[in-house]
Amino acid sequence: MKTYILLIDCTDEAGIVYKVTGVLYERKCNIISNDEFVDKSTNHFFMRTEFFGDIDQNEISAEIKKSLGSANISLVEKKKKNIVILVSKEHHCAGDLILRHHYAELDAHIEAVISNHQILSGLAEKFGIPFHFISHEGIERAAHEEKILAAIGEYNPDYLILAKYMRVLSGNFTERFPNRIINIHHSFLPAFIGASPYKQAHARGVKIIGATAHFVTESLDEGPIIAQDIIHVNHRLEVDDMVRAGRDVEKKTLATALNLALDERIFVINNRTVIFS
Amino acid sequence: MKTYILLIDCTDEAGIVYKVTGVLYERKCNIISNDEFVDKSTNHFFMRTEFFGDIDQNEISAEIKKSLGSANISLVEKKKKNIVILVSKEHHCAGDLILRHHYAELDAHIEAVISNHQILSGLAEKFGIPFHFISHEGIERAAHEEKILAAIGEYNPDYLILAKYMRVLSGNFTERFPNRIINIHHSFLPAFIGASPYKQAHARGVKIIGATAHFVTESLDEGPIIAQDIIHVNHRLEVDDMVRAGRDVEKKTLATALNLALDERIFVINNRTVIFS
Amino acid sequence: MKTYILLIDCTDEAGIVYKVTGVLYERKCNIISNDEFVDKSTNHFFMRTEFFGDIDQNEISAEIKKSLGSANISLVEKKKKNIVILVSKEHHCAGDLILRHHYAELDAHIEAVISNHQILSGLAEKFGIPFHFISHEGIERAAHEEKILAAIGEYNPDYLILAKYMRVLSGNFTERFPNRIINIHHSFLPAFIGASPYKQAHARGVKIIGATAHFVTESLDEGPIIAQDIIHVNHRLEVDDMVRAGRDVEKKTLATALNLALDERIFVINNRTVIFS
Amino acid sequence: MKTYILLIDCTDEAGIVYKVTGVLYERKCNIISNDEFVDKSTNHFFMRTEFFGDIDQNEISAEIKKSLGSANISLVEKKKKNIVILVSKEHHCAGDLILRHHYAELDAHIEAVISNHQILSGLAEKFGIPFHFISHEGIERAAHEEKILAAIGEYNPDYLILAKYMRVLSGNFTERFPNRIINIHHSFLPAFIGASPYKQAHARGVKIIGATAHFVTESLDEGPIIAQDIIHVNHRLEVDDMVRAGRDVEKKTLATALNLALDERIFVINNRTVIFS
Repeated sequence: MKTYILLIDCTDEAGIVYKVTGVLYERKCNIISNDEFVDKSTNHFFMRTEFFGDIDQNEISAEIKKSLGSANISLVEKKKKNIVILVSKEHHCAGDLILRHHYAELDAHIEAVISNHQILSGLAEKFGIPFHFISHEGIERAAHEEKILAAIGEYNPDYLILAKYMRVLSGNFTERFPNRIINIHHSFLPAFIGASPYKQAHARGVKIIGATAHFVTESLDEGPIIAQDIIHVNHRLEVDDMVRAGRDVEKKTLATALNLALDERIFVINNRTVIFS
Repeated sequence: MKTYILLIDCTDEAGIVYKVTGVLYERKCNIISNDEFVDKSTNHFFMRTEFFGDIDQNEISAEIKKSLGSANISLVEKKKKNIVILVSKEHHCAGDLILRHHYAELDAHIEAVISNHQILSGLAEKFGIPFHFISHEGIERAAHEEKILAAIGEYNPDYLILAKYMRVLSGNFTERFPNRIINIHHSFLPAFIGASPYKQAHARGVKIIGATAHFVTESLDEGPIIAQDIIHVNHRLEVDDMVRAGRDVEKKTLATALNLALDERIFVINNRTVIFS
Repeated sequence: MKTYILLIDCTDEAGIVYKVTGVLYERKCNIISNDEFVDKSTNHFFMRTEFFGDIDQNEISAEIKKSLGSANISLVEKKKKNIVILVSKEHHCAGDLILRHHYAELDAHIEAVISNHQILSGLAEKFGIPFHFISHEGIERAAHEEKILAAIGEYNPDYLILAKYMRVLSGNFTERFPNRIINIHHSFLPAFIGASPYKQAHARGVKIIGATAHFVTESLDEGPIIAQDIIHVNHRLEVDDMVRAGRDVEKKTLATALNLALDERIFVINNRTVIFS
Repeated sequence: MKTYILLIDCTDEAGIVYKVTGVLYERKCNIISNDEFVDKSTNHFFMRTEFFGDIDQNEISAEIKKSLGSANISLVEKKKKNIVILVSKEHHCAGDLILRHHYAELDAHIEAVISNHQILSGLAEKFGIPFHFISHEGIERAAHEEKILAAIGEYNPDYLILAKYMRVLSGNFTERFPNRIINIHHSFLPAFIGASPYKQAHARGVKIIGATAHFVTESLDEGPIIAQDIIHVNHRLEVDDMVRAGRDVEKKTLATALNLALDERIFVINNRTVIFS
């Protein structure tokens, strides 16, 4: 008996839950949890079902597909996923993920850390994680991305995690991993899009700063938002203090988003996410 | 076509969702939202379904009962509920509810305000709500409660709201309204049970104060918790400042809990609540 | 013996605190609280001192000015301030302020409510507050603003509170009340500047919505921020739900900002605020 | 020119700020920041001044003492402090501090990690921090504490940090480090004092869990509170889930408290803290 996660989304109509749970019931599957949601503005139905049983995945998927007509169906065994982390110079998000991984708090295996700088190689190595230094200097973006793709190609990651990777990825790169690249942006998007968000925040005199974890699309800082969180600040914080204070909320928000993805809890519709948490 | 809310809880077993949604599907009901939860420590299943259709409530309830065996089933039409508010001297919670009611933000009709003091009579009257002054002076608690029960008896409230009603209700009183009396307690329960929680909080030097909305049982401050919230405080706040600061979190927490109850989103099991929010 | 609030800001240099407290000490004033701050990026010094004593305000101000050279000095008696509220159709912020005022929780006297709609006249009247209906229909903005200024002229407000007043004020209007008009904006500025912020927030799929209280300048939504707060949201909230959920954070944030202003706790420098809270 | 932190607390009276800043002004010291507070319930005055200058610490302290009469005065150079960490089996708090230390985010030097278990030796060693394993098995508490004191004696820590050290310290131990031992307690004190707070929290059905960082005194869980924070939970969290969710708030709260201590921002009065943050 194994545990599975079934994700279905389709145009809403009567009877979907009944039909899907019927297929599972007939095969003696036992539902552990079940979440449904209908997005009214698009009349779209979303369902996430976790169940265990002794099944043939293809047979069940086909049977559900037949009973529902045109639906997006994903049926996967619940198990540890593989991730590759991309970083630049800052350690806090990568360090947090590596410690969670080391102490088995993360439902994922970190296969490698890839960076355009060497500074974090020691951190990865201390915890026995392969580190790939791929400098961006002296080469074009396309060539740099090809090298990164080659390094990623050694692994088979379910997700790429941009844990403060500070270079913009091309559409050519991002389209290979649709809804499979998660970035942490150091602002409460859509405020302070672009460079130096804490500098912008300080200049505007905001009383709250935040962080946003989102799937990466070709449009920088515009992908579907997965998680956001904030902290309160005041006039005493200079730009550098905001950067420091922001680290804690950045690493927490990225970890939250990653856990949601690892547990197959995120749907994307029209650049928005539906998250069963 | 009307909208209904179906609440089911029972020992967990395979097929419950399938069977229940089957009964609704056969009667051409359209599910608007569906939430399920299985409490692992008790192996108990909870389900809340909102649907619309043209149905016979008794027939559907009987059919579901038949298919499930022993389950708690509640099937009610979704509509405005009636509430009676009990207060003592403080205005902030009652005032907040009355304003929300006046501007149709509350899915409830406030039938009356009952108080052991006269001070809030003007507030109720400004908004056309009957006010009953029932003094507790010179009479025993049992006699006082009888008078209050008589006043409540003029109405048919779905819920009693203790919006800073500062007298302890007897078991004889509370058992008449199981899970239908909501109290706001001015602390983050179970911290500072009993009298003068803000004074206790100040003496202990806490950095956070809170409020708790809970169903009222015979055991004071021990009933199932519905909602809690907090605010951060510091050494600058004297006891009076904490009382003042606490008002905002008290009124917000009570309103949150009431809205959950009005929308039939709360189950109670073993003094804990399961809330589909 | 009366209580006073002294506000000083000037270019930083050694000895300011010593010199100012010396002037007060010689006149046997007793300091209740004292806050200082130096903004490093501008090398500007800010000081707020609350003290009581039997003094000649002009004499003390002159003496401090003499000892400091060029500084901005404000010395006022601590007392209830007067405010005028401007509203359009929405009740929640005005209703909250009126209730706080009615129960003496606000350190201000609400002299009048002015609106371009009639809908909230009943609310003001219930609590004995003069209501001025000044329609904007059929007249130009300048003419409308003249009428509002005339109405305000009957009173002598320390602050104008835009409690969901939904018309843009001209520079001609705002420059008459520098740092004396407080607006509540229904978004976490600078995100979602402009119209329909909740609609924008829903379309962007944010997981947090917020509110911003700020001083009003000629540039819409660009004035110095006083207070901000947020609530977490999820995919279940349609635009209307966000509007509803936002009300609580809007009214709380506006009340917070107003209290800071009433207690003379806000300095403005370069479109940012320094707040001693 | 060096930077110093001056802490003064004494019975309140007129002229304290004037006298103290006068001493500094005469010696050409430049005040960077200055915070004062008078606790009304005890009529006690607190002042923290950060300044730079070329001074004789003893001379200034003596001069201030002379001008004020009986006051507690501490004048220290602002510099990195030394800390020793005590742990048992859980890694999250120690790991977080070690990473912050490794990347120079902490204004302290971690001299050693001491534990009654061996499990975290690898973590300390990876980052070059001495690890002392001192088992409590087979010996009395007094003997165990003597061994720990001996290990601590090799260093000269300013603070001891109990980063999930799960054994109760005797009064004999704690009185050697008054207001110099910081513990992280895994509940929102004073709720759930004692063992298994998350189990207690789950049984009570709370909707919020928290963490408390406090100075350690002889009375378990009763010392002065430095920092508290919370997270919202719901019925879906079993005890184990609460433990997991609690880790993030525990490590954040401990780091916050430690930073306040390292920066000399905490006074203690009557089991409460006055914190200039």
